[in-house]
Amino acid sequence: MRQWPKVEYKEECMREGMQIEDVNIPVEQKVRLLEALSETGLKSIVVGSFVSPRYTPQMACIDELLRRFRPKPGITYTALVANPRGEERARAYSPPLTLEREPVPYLRCHLCDVFVRRNFNRSQSQEIERWPQIVARAREKGSVAAGIGINAAWGSNFLGPFTLGQRMEMLGRQHALWEETGIPVTHVSLGDPMSWNFPHEIEETLRAIKERWPAITHFKLHFHNARGMSMPSTYAALRSLEAADTVYLDGAIGGIGGCPYCGNGRATGMVATEDLMHLLERMGIATGVDLDKVIDCVWMLEEMLGRPATGHVSKAGPCPITPKEWYDPNMPLVETFEQARHFRLGPKAYEKGQRPWK
Amino acid sequence: MRQWPKVEYKEECMREGMQIEDVNIPVEQKVRLLEALSETGLKSIVVGSFVSPRYTPQMACIDELLRRFRPKPGITYTALVANPRGEERARAYSPPLTLEREPVPYLRCHLCDVFVRRNFNRSQSQEIERWPQIVARAREKGSVAAGIGINAAWGSNFLGPFTLGQRMEMLGRQHALWEETGIPVTHVSLGDPMSWNFPHEIEETLRAIKERWPAITHFKLHFHNARGMSMPSTYAALRSLEAADTVYLDGAIGGIGGCPYCGNGRATGMVATEDLMHLLERMGIATGVDLDKVIDCVWMLEEMLGRPATGHVSKAGPCPITPKEWYDPNMPLVETFEQARHFRLGPKAYEKGQRPWK
Repeated sequence: MRQWPKVEYKEECMREGMQIEDVNIPVEQKVRLLEALSETGLKSIVVGSFVSPRYTPQMACIDELLRRFRPKPGITYTALVANPRGEERARAYSPPLTLEREPVPYLRCHLCDVFVRRNFNRSQSQEIERWPQIVARAREKGSVAAGIGINAAWGSNFLGPFTLGQRMEMLGRQHALWEETGIPVTHVSLGDPMSWNFPHEIEETLRAIKERWPAITHFKLHFHNARGMSMPSTYAALRSLEAADTVYLDGAIGGIGGCPYCGNGRATGMVATEDLMHLLERMGIATGVDLDKVIDCVWMLEEMLGRPATGHVSKAGPCPITPKEWYDPNMPLVETFEQARHFRLGPKAYEKGQRPWK
Repeated sequence: MRQWPKVEYKEECMREGMQIEDVNIPVEQKVRLLEALSETGLKSIVVGSFVSPRYTPQMACIDELLRRFRPKPGITYTALVANPRGEERARAYSPPLTLEREPVPYLRCHLCDVFVRRNFNRSQSQEIERWPQIVARAREKGSVAAGIGINAAWGSNFLGPFTLGQRMEMLGRQHALWEETGIPVTHVSLGDPMSWNFPHEIEETLRAIKERWPAITHFKLHFHNARGMSMPSTYAALRSLEAADTVYLDGAIGGIGGCPYCGNGRATGMVATEDLMHLLERMGIATGVDLDKVIDCVWMLEEMLGRPATGHVSKAGPCPITPKEWYDPNMPLVETFEQARHFRLGPKAYEKGQRPWK
């Protein structure tokens, strides 16, 4: 069998997902969903973000959520923090929160100056100005490995597409700074907040990085899905990397997600956890996830949102692999979404289905 | 730039799509949609099927549809026929219908005996028994090229997964028959009515076929989407083939589609035309399609169905490439699906959006 890279997956439903959904979803429903997610086998769950309730009122309930939910041992719960104030707030909930420390110091910036201003209220130049300070601190601390990274790597809703040349030029500037310091670069981070990922460009980018900097073996990828490309791009990434590589992927149950600054709102989305876990298992990459339980979470989420989510496996069910799972060859016609739920609810889901051959 | 295979696309919304949707959709709405589809630049449209109204009442209106719609010159309209009675009915509408003749004679069968019995009321053995007769007729007619094909190629909801060995063994039997006759095999057809396609298995299968039979340069692929894999699998196919190859793909606007016999009903789906056309254009494969007009068709379809379709580009819009298309950097927060439609409706779509920075 083919060798795939090691996959580390982060569940973003409570953060990337909830930040773009209705501000009025009751916190007890969020507690219930977070606790159900904790039972699925997903190992890394982002619970929300410590940000200003004025800009992201959907996250105003994070304190209450963290006080009320029952954490499950063995799961890494994290939260996004955007500034020192957020870090301080997060510290009050650790444990159960794991305060995220990046495994290596990173030099990063956005290729799109408009987006970073809209989303983070700072400019690309300000991001770049911080690099020497980050390098100096890494040297002081004796860091033995470092990372480089670009966000909005493939394009911007405000400035159009970016080229491979632009990506490699910016990564090259970062890499050169680490090289001068003698700290080897082993990590790269490629973000796509505005859904400009396309599978052929993912392959092209990863190939270029691996060819130019073979010491890079850790790939952090964050794809949005407004153009339906996060799954093909994820597959393109998996096939571009090797067994010695580790790829860090983000997604959300139901495929929800997005930020109000990118311009696509709830139509943004991410890769649907249930569909990706199903694919990984079929590829022979063990996930440790109980897909039935993930699907139960998606159904719970759909009730909370009042609309169907965009994932597929929660509607049609996973491929029935073993004889026990195979569909009944004498089942009636299955036409509606309700009837299609027989994979989880049993034959009663389609008992009223037509049998035109009778 | 990388060389991709030639792509021939068939729009299946009116056939694969409508056959699983509400039987009560008025025919005048179908006429309107078919005429709108005809204006998009899509070159090949399947209008429906000539089948028994007892088994597929959704297609009972096909005569009325064909009598009433205004065909557009230059478009190939086809219909699916399942038997001689259907062929006879179709002939009455040609033109505007093009009676589909396969470019080469094909030997075909399903790998799943249960599905072929449910869907076509015949057995796999009966399919195979017809092969000698097809070969004999091809020899009589002096055919200079031939095709091989399997349906339910990757797996079955009733019998589980099929292996590469099973696929190659069945294709090999067909190929051997043509070889004995001295007719070279240039075409292969791989169908997946029950959504068992996965991108890594598509790559594996196409690679095996190309290695074993390099004379095959025409690849007919029909993927369903119940597990969300039709887009990654389509990409996997495109990257596995070469500039000298032609790939025939099927999909439907909105990503709808399915058959009542597969067991997944409306949760089956196909690749969404709008998302695939968008990807192809970004890959540098010219489609000749006006994506705005396709999106208008998806919105019309959603009104007919009373629910959102599963495609993405119709909700978030295509990537804004040129400065004229770029989003306004001072736009307010975009949160809802309605606001996200600004890409087509203009700034009035988000005029009530929040501006928390003010």
